[in-house]
Amino acid sequence: MTKDELVEEDSFSGKDYLDPPPVKTFEAKELKKWSFYRAVIAEFIATLLFLYVTVLTVIGFKSQTDRESGGGACASVGLLGISWAFGGMIFILVYCTAGISGGHINPAVTFGLFLASKVSLVRALSYMVAQCLGATCGVGLVKAFQPSYYNRYGGGANMLSDGYNVGVGVGAEITGTFVLVYTVFSATDPKRNARDSHIPVLAPLPIGFSVFMVHLATIPITGTGINPARSFGAAVIYNNQKAWDDQWIFWVGPFVGAAIAAFYHQFVLRAGAMKAYGSVRSQLHELHA
Amino acid sequence: MTKDELVEEDSFSGKDYLDPPPVKTFEAKELKKWSFYRAVIAEFIATLLFLYVTVLTVIGFKSQTDRESGGGACASVGLLGISWAFGGMIFILVYCTAGISGGHINPAVTFGLFLASKVSLVRALSYMVAQCLGATCGVGLVKAFQPSYYNRYGGGANMLSDGYNVGVGVGAEITGTFVLVYTVFSATDPKRNARDSHIPVLAPLPIGFSVFMVHLATIPITGTGINPARSFGAAVIYNNQKAWDDQWIFWVGPFVGAAIAAFYHQFVLRAGAMKAYGSVRSQLHELHA
Amino acid sequence: MTKDELVEEDSFSGKDYLDPPPVKTFEAKELKKWSFYRAVIAEFIATLLFLYVTVLTVIGFKSQTDRESGGGACASVGLLGISWAFGGMIFILVYCTAGISGGHINPAVTFGLFLASKVSLVRALSYMVAQCLGATCGVGLVKAFQPSYYNRYGGGANMLSDGYNVGVGVGAEITGTFVLVYTVFSATDPKRNARDSHIPVLAPLPIGFSVFMVHLATIPITGTGINPARSFGAAVIYNNQKAWDDQWIFWVGPFVGAAIAAFYHQFVLRAGAMKAYGSVRSQLHELHA
Amino acid sequence: MTKDELVEEDSFSGKDYLDPPPVKTFEAKELKKWSFYRAVIAEFIATLLFLYVTVLTVIGFKSQTDRESGGGACASVGLLGISWAFGGMIFILVYCTAGISGGHINPAVTFGLFLASKVSLVRALSYMVAQCLGATCGVGLVKAFQPSYYNRYGGGANMLSDGYNVGVGVGAEITGTFVLVYTVFSATDPKRNARDSHIPVLAPLPIGFSVFMVHLATIPITGTGINPARSFGAAVIYNNQKAWDDQWIFWVGPFVGAAIAAFYHQFVLRAGAMKAYGSVRSQLHELHA
Repeated sequence: MTKDELVEEDSFSGKDYLDPPPVKTFEAKELKKWSFYRAVIAEFIATLLFLYVTVLTVIGFKSQTDRESGGGACASVGLLGISWAFGGMIFILVYCTAGISGGHINPAVTFGLFLASKVSLVRALSYMVAQCLGATCGVGLVKAFQPSYYNRYGGGANMLSDGYNVGVGVGAEITGTFVLVYTVFSATDPKRNARDSHIPVLAPLPIGFSVFMVHLATIPITGTGINPARSFGAAVIYNNQKAWDDQWIFWVGPFVGAAIAAFYHQFVLRAGAMKAYGSVRSQLHELHA
Repeated sequence: MTKDELVEEDSFSGKDYLDPPPVKTFEAKELKKWSFYRAVIAEFIATLLFLYVTVLTVIGFKSQTDRESGGGACASVGLLGISWAFGGMIFILVYCTAGISGGHINPAVTFGLFLASKVSLVRALSYMVAQCLGATCGVGLVKAFQPSYYNRYGGGANMLSDGYNVGVGVGAEITGTFVLVYTVFSATDPKRNARDSHIPVLAPLPIGFSVFMVHLATIPITGTGINPARSFGAAVIYNNQKAWDDQWIFWVGPFVGAAIAAFYHQFVLRAGAMKAYGSVRSQLHELHA
Repeated sequence: MTKDELVEEDSFSGKDYLDPPPVKTFEAKELKKWSFYRAVIAEFIATLLFLYVTVLTVIGFKSQTDRESGGGACASVGLLGISWAFGGMIFILVYCTAGISGGHINPAVTFGLFLASKVSLVRALSYMVAQCLGATCGVGLVKAFQPSYYNRYGGGANMLSDGYNVGVGVGAEITGTFVLVYTVFSATDPKRNARDSHIPVLAPLPIGFSVFMVHLATIPITGTGINPARSFGAAVIYNNQKAWDDQWIFWVGPFVGAAIAAFYHQFVLRAGAMKAYGSVRSQLHELHA
Repeated sequence: MTKDELVEEDSFSGKDYLDPPPVKTFEAKELKKWSFYRAVIAEFIATLLFLYVTVLTVIGFKSQTDRESGGGACASVGLLGISWAFGGMIFILVYCTAGISGGHINPAVTFGLFLASKVSLVRALSYMVAQCLGATCGVGLVKAFQPSYYNRYGGGANMLSDGYNVGVGVGAEITGTFVLVYTVFSATDPKRNARDSHIPVLAPLPIGFSVFMVHLATIPITGTGINPARSFGAAVIYNNQKAWDDQWIFWVGPFVGAAIAAFYHQFVLRAGAMKAYGSVRSQLHELHA
């Protein structure tokens, strides 16, 4: 066997870790297991709690900044507090649901993992429906608690801010989601889980932090989506023309960002491309031998 | 044996973890062990420190915001700092006392774990008394240090804010406590402790963060209780009519929230309902066989 | 042997952990090892970095709040940023030096561990000298960098704030140091290290957080010492009458707090008292048998 | 063999850890491995993301502080949020890339590890080029998104602030980088990885925190570089005379700081000096025996 010079080291040597086999796109058997429905429920509840806490924080922030305007603007948690709310909730919820549903809480994450054959199509679609429903219920709970504040202070909906064009909004969503999904892929990679002890143990923390970071950077531009369920739920409950007009940005951007992250992780970092190429070459070689 | 199709996977296969047997409601033997009294003392001290640090932070925040009003409102730690104080103290204290008393520091947490048969009635009641006494002493210490500021700045007591009705207050306490107690159940679940290395190692951190998050979201509504001992201690020392009138909100809300979280974890996520149902069916089947 | 009913469970059964033997007060052999001098150097450098970064943050905060007064007060890191600076540096430095010197960086911590026979007298005194020298050099570096700002903005010195009497200051220092040293004892307890995986892995984080928390609570009262080296170093460089007059508060308070924490951990939580009592009783019993 | 009294304890006894052999300065074989190119790509992408998120946060902060001046200055994430952005991104990116490239994301870190013979010259230079390119692309992306804001708000470039002389700037960069690179050395030391479980597991967190801390302290002085790629990328895209004039500070300072940290870790903490001395002495002794 002629060994290609430029190969991924692991591909021919004994591995000290196990990549699980890729999940089939259609996996009918899943539908018969309680653990599948439990996972869907867990995604629903987690997304509900995520939107409830974060949108409540946003509305509270705006009502307090407003009420005490004229020097007292600091009597709110600030944009920093809002960013913490989003990132911190993702940290908690990934911690709590990772062992049950994988802890996606975000259709873009589900989409990225689906592209990488880590979840089946039926599971991916069920999760996305549960996430969108959960987000809608979570925002609905906030509105039910304080209907007047909710409407007065923008309903936590994602919209493109004044002074930014559509391209910037989509770009911000793509790169923001890339940061998040890239972190998710790093945290769930079996090869790295086996080698670096910080990978499995800390996992929910950097995932939460990536959401925190992206909020610090892009709240001024789009209010930060990077989670289509979050944008969808707020749009349904707030039901404002501009929120619906901009809605596509918060689906296209995150899905494209997640796809790029999946490609980057699978084909560049895990050298899928190299392995595919090497495998073709060695087969060809055997044919001609 | 006819295997029910829709069963929890673990229920019939070999387990790689051990659920401890449910604790009996009455466990007289406990009262003879030093470790029991040590645990009660640890809960007392922990709740005392929790209230002392957090209420001191609240009073300091208000005195500084006030003193330097007119532009200098930012010379305080802000609502974000207050939220950190509550969440961070819970992180520290759970870290320090988890191995001694379980690290409840909160009657709602104790109540949730009692419902799930993880602590006995006698232990639950002893903890709650210790927590309420500790909280009262902690707030008392703050008042002893700075009696004038303490009374002028609201005494750290939980009250429903103007413009919110009772239903909203109770709802905010229920959902907030649900987030906390759900995280506690996730962190202490023996099945997940055995499978995901992040569960036991990080445990105190997401518990602390859940308190942090809920404070970000509900300080504007109720000042955030989600801990009856915290609300009780502040009410005793501040001894204000409105604080006592609203006190029931901070007991009913957290206890209901903790009960829902216990139900969700035990019956949905750990599929207690499914197991009970499956076990009845298989017994019936055997009877008819 | 008659088994006392009210005993510490561990005291008679096989242990799954090992308490290191108490360190002798005088341990002349230590002085011949390079690792001893390395530890002293590490304490010196760590305390230097601690004071350098934190006092620089304090001076920068005050200069920016001042410069941009009139609406722009938020253009500084705020009291929350200052609290993070103190807590975060302790987190980093304990992480980096725990394996070399134990990571005390604080004479009160050294004193607490000395009382619990975990460090010898000669090591304790050497550490304290190194810490005080390091702190002085760290603050000196800040003054060398920006002498005019340094003097104008209070030099980072600990002083009792206006409106608080001496008793409150000492009390705040005692309780604050208790929180810190109690966390240190919890993090370094061999029994708990063996049982709870979060204890050894997270250790530097709750220690850093305890410093963060205490700063949130007591900056308005004393500027927060809880570290005699920190207060001493700033007093030497700032060299202000009031800083020297109040200096004793920042030695007596922390040392008393550390002593109480050592007592609480050794005699209550680790049941030293019970074991001593049990051991006396069983000896008496054997005598009379 | 006469045993020197003042020796490093480990040097003669059996070790429970393995120091990897020092990397050769020239390591031509590396260039034939895919893993080498993958590591370079990972450094490029990580530095790109680092600059993109952080500079976007800086520009957003300034535009919001400005837009809402007159009381609403707090409607931005604040200097604390900016410090979190830098520190938090380093935490995430070290977490994600540590297993692939070592997670340097900073030429000063690469330089320090090169001095300690932990990376070869060819790898060090390739990383530095990739980091500088990545940083330039990251800042370029921010400018492409919002060209008018980018230029109006200083482009995220590092410059010496008014009122500080060159010596202070260089000093601040030296000490700041020392804190960072010292933490990196502590986190990657094989001896400590084997002994303290917090070292490998937490690693990315204190590294991120050290960046966070240094930003809190030195943003008022230089805007905080401690990363030549970060300063270079912003200077290229902002292309301002003063940014280029001060550029050398952000290369000389960090490289000197990294060199001191490498020296401190290798020769003082790991006692390289003592071992070299001991080894010479024992050889001399054998010669004369």
